[in-house]
Amino acid sequence: MDKRYEQERIVVIWSNENKLSLWQKSELAAIKASASLGEFDMAIYDQIETILLHQPIDIAWWLNWDKVIGHDLNAFVAERVRHLPLELQIFLHKKLTSFDTQEPAFGRMLLDSLAVVEEGCDAFEEVLIDMARKYRYTIMNSRTHGQEGELMTFGARILSWLADFRIAREILSDAKSRLKYSKMSGAHGKYGSISPKMEKIALQILGFTPYYGATQIIPRVIYTPVAQALSDMVQLLNKIAVEIRLNARSSRPLMREPFGKKQTGSSAMPHKRNPVKAEQIAGMARMANGYKVMLESNIETWEERDIAQSSVERVAWPDIFHVMVYSLNSMTAILSGLQVYPENMLLEIYESHEVAGSSELKEFLKEKMSAHGFGYEAAYRTMQLACFNLFEPSDELLKLRRPAESFSEASSMLNALQYLPRPSRIVSISEFIPQANLRVSGELAATQEEVDTYNTCLATIFADPVNRKEWDGIFNPAEMLHNENELFWQILGDDIGEE
Amino acid sequence: MDKRYEQERIVVIWSNENKLSLWQKSELAAIKASASLGEFDMAIYDQIETILLHQPIDIAWWLNWDKVIGHDLNAFVAERVRHLPLELQIFLHKKLTSFDTQEPAFGRMLLDSLAVVEEGCDAFEEVLIDMARKYRYTIMNSRTHGQEGELMTFGARILSWLADFRIAREILSDAKSRLKYSKMSGAHGKYGSISPKMEKIALQILGFTPYYGATQIIPRVIYTPVAQALSDMVQLLNKIAVEIRLNARSSRPLMREPFGKKQTGSSAMPHKRNPVKAEQIAGMARMANGYKVMLESNIETWEERDIAQSSVERVAWPDIFHVMVYSLNSMTAILSGLQVYPENMLLEIYESHEVAGSSELKEFLKEKMSAHGFGYEAAYRTMQLACFNLFEPSDELLKLRRPAESFSEASSMLNALQYLPRPSRIVSISEFIPQANLRVSGELAATQEEVDTYNTCLATIFADPVNRKEWDGIFNPAEMLHNENELFWQILGDDIGEE
Amino acid sequence: MDKRYEQERIVVIWSNENKLSLWQKSELAAIKASASLGEFDMAIYDQIETILLHQPIDIAWWLNWDKVIGHDLNAFVAERVRHLPLELQIFLHKKLTSFDTQEPAFGRMLLDSLAVVEEGCDAFEEVLIDMARKYRYTIMNSRTHGQEGELMTFGARILSWLADFRIAREILSDAKSRLKYSKMSGAHGKYGSISPKMEKIALQILGFTPYYGATQIIPRVIYTPVAQALSDMVQLLNKIAVEIRLNARSSRPLMREPFGKKQTGSSAMPHKRNPVKAEQIAGMARMANGYKVMLESNIETWEERDIAQSSVERVAWPDIFHVMVYSLNSMTAILSGLQVYPENMLLEIYESHEVAGSSELKEFLKEKMSAHGFGYEAAYRTMQLACFNLFEPSDELLKLRRPAESFSEASSMLNALQYLPRPSRIVSISEFIPQANLRVSGELAATQEEVDTYNTCLATIFADPVNRKEWDGIFNPAEMLHNENELFWQILGDDIGEE
Amino acid sequence: MDKRYEQERIVVIWSNENKLSLWQKSELAAIKASASLGEFDMAIYDQIETILLHQPIDIAWWLNWDKVIGHDLNAFVAERVRHLPLELQIFLHKKLTSFDTQEPAFGRMLLDSLAVVEEGCDAFEEVLIDMARKYRYTIMNSRTHGQEGELMTFGARILSWLADFRIAREILSDAKSRLKYSKMSGAHGKYGSISPKMEKIALQILGFTPYYGATQIIPRVIYTPVAQALSDMVQLLNKIAVEIRLNARSSRPLMREPFGKKQTGSSAMPHKRNPVKAEQIAGMARMANGYKVMLESNIETWEERDIAQSSVERVAWPDIFHVMVYSLNSMTAILSGLQVYPENMLLEIYESHEVAGSSELKEFLKEKMSAHGFGYEAAYRTMQLACFNLFEPSDELLKLRRPAESFSEASSMLNALQYLPRPSRIVSISEFIPQANLRVSGELAATQEEVDTYNTCLATIFADPVNRKEWDGIFNPAEMLHNENELFWQILGDDIGEE
Repeated sequence: MDKRYEQERIVVIWSNENKLSLWQKSELAAIKASASLGEFDMAIYDQIETILLHQPIDIAWWLNWDKVIGHDLNAFVAERVRHLPLELQIFLHKKLTSFDTQEPAFGRMLLDSLAVVEEGCDAFEEVLIDMARKYRYTIMNSRTHGQEGELMTFGARILSWLADFRIAREILSDAKSRLKYSKMSGAHGKYGSISPKMEKIALQILGFTPYYGATQIIPRVIYTPVAQALSDMVQLLNKIAVEIRLNARSSRPLMREPFGKKQTGSSAMPHKRNPVKAEQIAGMARMANGYKVMLESNIETWEERDIAQSSVERVAWPDIFHVMVYSLNSMTAILSGLQVYPENMLLEIYESHEVAGSSELKEFLKEKMSAHGFGYEAAYRTMQLACFNLFEPSDELLKLRRPAESFSEASSMLNALQYLPRPSRIVSISEFIPQANLRVSGELAATQEEVDTYNTCLATIFADPVNRKEWDGIFNPAEMLHNENELFWQILGDDIGEE
Repeated sequence: MDKRYEQERIVVIWSNENKLSLWQKSELAAIKASASLGEFDMAIYDQIETILLHQPIDIAWWLNWDKVIGHDLNAFVAERVRHLPLELQIFLHKKLTSFDTQEPAFGRMLLDSLAVVEEGCDAFEEVLIDMARKYRYTIMNSRTHGQEGELMTFGARILSWLADFRIAREILSDAKSRLKYSKMSGAHGKYGSISPKMEKIALQILGFTPYYGATQIIPRVIYTPVAQALSDMVQLLNKIAVEIRLNARSSRPLMREPFGKKQTGSSAMPHKRNPVKAEQIAGMARMANGYKVMLESNIETWEERDIAQSSVERVAWPDIFHVMVYSLNSMTAILSGLQVYPENMLLEIYESHEVAGSSELKEFLKEKMSAHGFGYEAAYRTMQLACFNLFEPSDELLKLRRPAESFSEASSMLNALQYLPRPSRIVSISEFIPQANLRVSGELAATQEEVDTYNTCLATIFADPVNRKEWDGIFNPAEMLHNENELFWQILGDDIGEE
Repeated sequence: MDKRYEQERIVVIWSNENKLSLWQKSELAAIKASASLGEFDMAIYDQIETILLHQPIDIAWWLNWDKVIGHDLNAFVAERVRHLPLELQIFLHKKLTSFDTQEPAFGRMLLDSLAVVEEGCDAFEEVLIDMARKYRYTIMNSRTHGQEGELMTFGARILSWLADFRIAREILSDAKSRLKYSKMSGAHGKYGSISPKMEKIALQILGFTPYYGATQIIPRVIYTPVAQALSDMVQLLNKIAVEIRLNARSSRPLMREPFGKKQTGSSAMPHKRNPVKAEQIAGMARMANGYKVMLESNIETWEERDIAQSSVERVAWPDIFHVMVYSLNSMTAILSGLQVYPENMLLEIYESHEVAGSSELKEFLKEKMSAHGFGYEAAYRTMQLACFNLFEPSDELLKLRRPAESFSEASSMLNALQYLPRPSRIVSISEFIPQANLRVSGELAATQEEVDTYNTCLATIFADPVNRKEWDGIFNPAEMLHNENELFWQILGDDIGEE
Repeated sequence: MDKRYEQERIVVIWSNENKLSLWQKSELAAIKASASLGEFDMAIYDQIETILLHQPIDIAWWLNWDKVIGHDLNAFVAERVRHLPLELQIFLHKKLTSFDTQEPAFGRMLLDSLAVVEEGCDAFEEVLIDMARKYRYTIMNSRTHGQEGELMTFGARILSWLADFRIAREILSDAKSRLKYSKMSGAHGKYGSISPKMEKIALQILGFTPYYGATQIIPRVIYTPVAQALSDMVQLLNKIAVEIRLNARSSRPLMREPFGKKQTGSSAMPHKRNPVKAEQIAGMARMANGYKVMLESNIETWEERDIAQSSVERVAWPDIFHVMVYSLNSMTAILSGLQVYPENMLLEIYESHEVAGSSELKEFLKEKMSAHGFGYEAAYRTMQLACFNLFEPSDELLKLRRPAESFSEASSMLNALQYLPRPSRIVSISEFIPQANLRVSGELAATQEEVDTYNTCLATIFADPVNRKEWDGIFNPAEMLHNENELFWQILGDDIGEE
């Protein structure tokens, strides 16, 4: 892994030093288990343990011997056996095959790496929880298809991030649950010369339980879901990162990732504050996916095993963990330092004519227009037309809706903007509809006749002050967002009570 | 999906007819839930239900209207609303967004498809269980790296297939457990105008529980593991299929997939009995993987949603289920009809000089040679050399180990084979070693001097009749495979007892 | 493929009817080639051709017989042979193996599908070319990292789309160039009983050239790049589609995909104009990628062949072509009908204080400040600070930059917006800097002392009217975009000349 | 990349030292180009060049400053600028954006890495060519579906490997051809303040040509096919490696990868000679695929760019090259040292009753039986039945075709093998058919009546000595493999002439 993204704790776990130390633990557990079953005296185990634990494993010697014989585990046994008197040598790696030693070590490395991931998850969740509460009443337009939708709070959006992230953790946790299995059942996993009792005891010492049905190795279908869950989790982090990028788009950013006081955004353009950390998570997601693809392909093995999975696991497991932990830490840092601009969220609601209420307003129209003989479709079309009317630019601005024919024309058009009358305030959809003044739109099918009938009907409806009052009360954040309480209760356990 | 691989039950589940009928169930559940909360009279619900259930959904009308308005759910509502009197129209799809209707329907289609998969899994498991018991005492060489390993039974290999398959089912079951979630919480999942209570009741009617934290849709990270688990399961079936192909390799097949009496193997070569069904599973595995890749990429969604996932799900979900069910059924058929040749398994053991015992024989040598001052390494090298000696071809055959210089020479060499003396019987490794007659091998490093010391040591060891007797008893299937009982007990619950 | 995305011409090409008709062409070509080499009389060929061409292939008969014998090509031969007198039967499929017949047919289906793709490419390119010219002088902010960058034209952006698309076409064309190869060289491709001359002639008739080195099949590494090129092209279309989605984001869309006059955007929210067609391209990209993954995995084949690739090719080739052609046609439609809003592009430039000129303005400062003893870094920091100053919200707005504590507070804050003083015009960066009035920013490291020195230096520089004049001339679209001419010349061949 | 697989030359190319030295080359080229266009005096360039080339880049300083400002290219400029007097500083990185500097450097790293790959390709091809010639007359059964097919030579199989590999090289070469493009066209690639002439000259100095249409970066669709071609090539190497594994399967290996004299095959089983190097290539293929997947996803970029591709490229490009070069070198070593056993290839032909001739023998039967009123189908079925008859085991062996009921029965069955009569010679299909003694087979549909008519017909045909002579001449390697000459001519240019 590139040094930039490397995580120190993952480096240590997957180092040769740690791996060989774990191999030694497997070997010792096997000897102890055999002794405990009476195959030989426990004193023999004690002697071996004492010697081996006091002789540090010589990694250079091991690497060199591995090159000669082309077998890393045999080379390890050779390194260890050097330190034992002849009469003790026969007890080392007795009846075992390489993967009886390696599988428990490998399982331990996975579990230890997952523990680092979990710490990162805890920290990330904590930040989300704090943010959700902090922005409990910060209102914004929801966005579906990149378009303003209905009203919601930023806190509630964060709850969605949190809920989804917990699902990703649950998936990872399910996958991890199967890492309890390991094996010490011989060259093809059928206990050729190894007793199942010895395996059970040795694995227990090492913190595992036997997988009955192993071949020379644990079937890789047990490990695949871990890689898939890790990748899914990084994809999910990237989903959040993409939202930050979308919301950080100038010119009216709703939020921005932290920017160091000495940071520079672009070597060419000094005004830039690029969301590079959030964008980088997309890169992490691509990498996590690639490593997952490598690890998934390890399910295929010929018969009692082939060695194809070995090189892949040497590379892809540590690297997917580097990517995972880096992503978690980076996202935790981004969110902890996130600059949020509630004023811009409000501006969006305001300048979009408060169409965030269109869904509920439409339900009102459906009901009232129905009494005047208009069906479902007509109410929908009335509301749609009203919104389209409101979104039309002013006539002055509309004059600029044309491709310039030359750069000088483009310059003139740009200059014209500063003289353009700017509306002192924005008309909301709630104000507009009761005026019963819908216009035919070039973008919709309704004819003048149809629009006239809509206007007539609207005029009648809003002539009734009861209707008008009811209507005016619809766009009310406290009312519209009342039900978000349920989410805070279900997800955070926050009992906000009735306001 | 190509007609060849299409599964009728999956076709029905994912048909427009079924989908729209499920949409209608969602709509009715929402109305019933609202009525049950007192929003309006239950009689209104009853009226709507009666009308809609008696008016079959007009698929052609719907398809046509969808083309006009470009919105399938709106088109469906329009189709249904046609049959309702004006005063009932306002209750249909009230306050709902499209995916309030669609998510429960979609979840149901997934669950129903998984039920079909599970039936296939049950049938497949049953075949494996029967086979494991049938071949409980059918001995064979295990194969690691494609090379003969130790002794095992074919029954025990099948137990590994079974254990792995159960893991794959467990993974699928974990993934399925999260399909209990659905949503009816409005346009961005925050209950804009929908009450959480209504959602809870409506989903309960439909067999689901609310996902708190939804956006307009359920986060796709909930569905991804289902696709991953399905693909993993097909990869695992392919692992078994590959083993069948490897074992079916002529000239001495250990097993063969069924071959119809009128089947032809090749348009050119009438002698062929190709394992085409097993090979096809590899194709299925490639397809399952591809569909999984499509579905995984649906995790990314912008903010409260975009529609990118929709087309993918229309195509990839039914198709991954077709592939899954086809694969299961095909593998069940292959294994049910599998032709197994125990005589060829025996021939392999015999003709490989029974080196399947080399691991245990080596342990014996390690112990005995140790008493003569030989370490771990020497015992290993003695055993290795003996095996290499035995695998050397006869001198006559060795003369043919050269590239021919012309086709006529090649013909002569081929003809020579029928006159080659064939050994009347094969010497086993157990017989060979006590002869203390190891030879230097061009393929190993041991010098003549080293070989001499090995031979001297061996001669001394086997001069002792106690040693010889112990040695001769090592290659004994009943003894060597004794521990397989544990596997039959752990995996099948078969208590075979002591023999 | 789901009916929604199915392309009629692709359906026809990959139909059983077309496939079997192409198989017949292969068979006839082989007979004709043998006759032309004098193996038998050409009259025999004529007889066979006359009979076969007048007997339509009975697809139902074939499907049924295939089910009995489990071999589709043998079943086809059986269907054809029915119509031949005994003495002519021996000439059909003589010495051929199935894939001698199938490979040329398969190659033809690929080539015909690619021809459909190419038509779609032509149409798409044409739209891009028209648009590039139309928006030749339509200025906008470029966007890097989602942030406004420098000035550019929309026409130039379209040129980038076009140039990239042409690269994708070139990649596809390279891949296609290897589809000239086919084979008719027998059961393992080594001309067991087939003469290379016959192959050459037969393939020539069919429009192919022999691949020397085939096994039973053409190596799939020849086809893989076609799938990769198709997927890459769809990814590229999606890159464009994503930009449309980004630019269509309300509240100030720069462009929007076409919206039918009767279209509806959301079943809940009538105001919606969702870019659903552009979003759907992301779904297409996911599918294309998945099919590509399937087809890539076909490179692996055992020895002279296995059949794993067959099912994959039956499904994934037609489906990747459906996706490809659908995507092309859909993007052509989106761009043809694209609604472009030049006025909003201008507004973006204007409201972002014309920082689009920051890069060139910085170069000016670098040079001038250097004369006052300021290095590279100082000029950069001066410019950066000026931009940050300008982007600060007004004090009134800044008061709203805080999370609300309750919904009623949120409502008040929203209401406050309509009373907020709106600046009558926006100060540009070109105006701001000469005022030499930079302020310390909480977001950058520069201290008051440093800012003072910057201001002093700026004051000195802009006291010089020559400098001021030069400075004021920098932000000039005609000047800044002058070099885009080169792109129009290089990419479209448009010689705009000096303005 | 794990140290085991790391390639020294690739490490150097992708080192920080090399990267920054290449960045400096880009900067210098830009200054030189501007000077050559008369923007300033060439003496300025000379001064800058002299200073910079004599001041080694301080990597540690750079890394540290990058951490502070979060921008690697700006940090590099800062490191360099330190060494320049104030008046020269303004010329460095003037008007450039980071990727104007980085893209040519990145392109150079790709091209240099590809040069290493090409050297590896040359060496690999050479080995294949030597082997093809060496085994020009070494006959073997071809294998389709893992079943013995027709006769071929091992040399011809190697020609297929070679031809396919050349295709993979051609694909890579096509992809590489587009690496000629680079860019130095400013922050969004539209020459904001950079002249196209300067770009052209600067790129020419660096060995590139401008890509017209760039954004801030070269579109990644240009690089994607390189990754795809590399992965395809590794997949192809793995296809060959799989064939070696298949052919190395004991008990009768046709070939084996080299085995060191001190190598050990298994820590448990000393007899093992595992094809671990060939199996490892499968691991490499999985990794290459994963890195390719990462790099493919870089096509997506937002507008004029985002930075997501950056981290991926830092990791995946060097690593895919490590994997590629390692795979090439490893396969070259495997094939150079491949132990080939022609005697076992002959034994396979012989013991499979020379059915390798079945295709041509069938064509003879088709013709002759046709004269007796038998159609296409009957001749095929006659040949099929004869082959199935020959493959039936002896009655004695057939008695062992049953699952044992206990381990002691299994032992007895195994022991029985040494007393089994072994046929002194094998009857070939050419001998068998003229005996006109076909038997009904339980595995085929032909009835006794049908078999009788076949036998009668065969008896008649072979009663004719002309027929018999022609028949006996069919199985003749020189004749059957005659056409392989064409392959040696077409692929190697070897003109063997008529024999």
